[in-house]
Amino acid sequence: MSDTLAILAGSGGLPVALAAARPAAVCITFAGVSHELFRVTHEHRFEKMGALFDDLKARGVTEVVFAGSMSRPPLDPQGFDPVMMALAPRLLAAMQGGDDALLRLVVQIFEEQGFTVRGAHEIAPDLTVPEGLFAGPQPSHAALQDTERGADILSALSPVDVGQGCVVAGGLCLGIETIQGTDALLEFVAQTPKHLRRGARGVFVKAPKRGQDLRVDMPAIGPETLRNAARAGVEGIVLQAGSVLIVDTKSVLQEAEKESVFILGRVL
Amino acid sequence: MSDTLAILAGSGGLPVALAAARPAAVCITFAGVSHELFRVTHEHRFEKMGALFDDLKARGVTEVVFAGSMSRPPLDPQGFDPVMMALAPRLLAAMQGGDDALLRLVVQIFEEQGFTVRGAHEIAPDLTVPEGLFAGPQPSHAALQDTERGADILSALSPVDVGQGCVVAGGLCLGIETIQGTDALLEFVAQTPKHLRRGARGVFVKAPKRGQDLRVDMPAIGPETLRNAARAGVEGIVLQAGSVLIVDTKSVLQEAEKESVFILGRVL
Repeated sequence: MSDTLAILAGSGGLPVALAAARPAAVCITFAGVSHELFRVTHEHRFEKMGALFDDLKARGVTEVVFAGSMSRPPLDPQGFDPVMMALAPRLLAAMQGGDDALLRLVVQIFEEQGFTVRGAHEIAPDLTVPEGLFAGPQPSHAALQDTERGADILSALSPVDVGQGCVVAGGLCLGIETIQGTDALLEFVAQTPKHLRRGARGVFVKAPKRGQDLRVDMPAIGPETLRNAARAGVEGIVLQAGSVLIVDTKSVLQEAEKESVFILGRVL
Repeated sequence: MSDTLAILAGSGGLPVALAAARPAAVCITFAGVSHELFRVTHEHRFEKMGALFDDLKARGVTEVVFAGSMSRPPLDPQGFDPVMMALAPRLLAAMQGGDDALLRLVVQIFEEQGFTVRGAHEIAPDLTVPEGLFAGPQPSHAALQDTERGADILSALSPVDVGQGCVVAGGLCLGIETIQGTDALLEFVAQTPKHLRRGARGVFVKAPKRGQDLRVDMPAIGPETLRNAARAGVEGIVLQAGSVLIVDTKSVLQEAEKESVFILGRVL
């Protein structure tokens, strides 16, 4: 019997990992969006959302998961089916509000069609970091103290919808993640003059913002994050347990050993 | 009759501006600390704090203001007078806690000696930005909206003692000031990829942290801040009215005109 789950796949390794975790799931790709799936049930078009909904329902799909990043291919209005024609005004309005607003609307549209929208972490909990030491050396006492300070900073910022991450060393805040993302933050921290650090290595703390919809916008780290963290001089990375995806776990574990940077899952 | 105020002067233009504002004030400099004062009442030594306190009291001084930055010249323990000998253990302990702890202790020591410690903004309110448009073009409606968002972010961060400033453009937070200071923040923002800004110029919002002791640690902007703000692409700078020093007002006004960047005083 076929799975009641459909993976709506964009680019990157996440859809591949989900397809491996749920071998019987329906795998949907989209024309104009690259993907790395080894198995595709059907390729759909954004212009024909009605056809997509009909197809999913005919296959007995009741749950969907969005995975991977989707560029926005140029849409051909001539090819819109009636369902997409009806959705167009709402999509247009949401697009002016940025990615977040668009993603929220897409979730809402699938829910209106009767589907339950799941997050990747619900489908494959193994892809997130659990509580405890996940990789690398044991955190020092100083690192655990900096973790508490980092958690306090993120929690203070959460109500104003800023800051998926921050770097703290010796109690001092060396950087807060803003719209430019994790890599830009770690690069900024790497440039911090040495005398400002009080000799402390510190930690990078990462957690979803309060109210962040993990079904469409989940924090993630990959091997590049480990290399950037090492360059930023931190002792380790602390992640909200169960809520931050590890992309390419094998390479992440290797980099953690090689760079001697720990990865710790914490309930922050 | 001589003023009851003593200006304890370090380097930079602030002591000069205070001496001009209070022409009868006692002007104290310190051996090994550079200054630009045109008028010096007496040069003292950090090694002989007892002599300083006696001198100030003999002159009828009841209030002191610390102004300008003081490097820490190498101290000669052989030259310590008894008062400095007695203070040494406390100073040593505070120095290990960083600049903030040391400054707090210095204030405390002067208060113990019976002096009232004033902030530069109390002595010469003209050196801070008052409420209203101070320089440059009128802020746009978008800039005022970004100001509200910036004020919310700073106010959320205040309880965790982070963030004298932040940059907001189109509602998005492009950066938060951390230990590296204003120039590093503006440089970081200048590097933000254009597509992340949603076409908005945005504002740089600056205010003291809640509980920040303005008597020894006052936020300040100067002509360089204006140039860096222009490079960061912001429409203007919004300052907590009455609480942020303007260093070199004439050049600041010139740069604001030249770069077409506004400076607005607000009760944030």
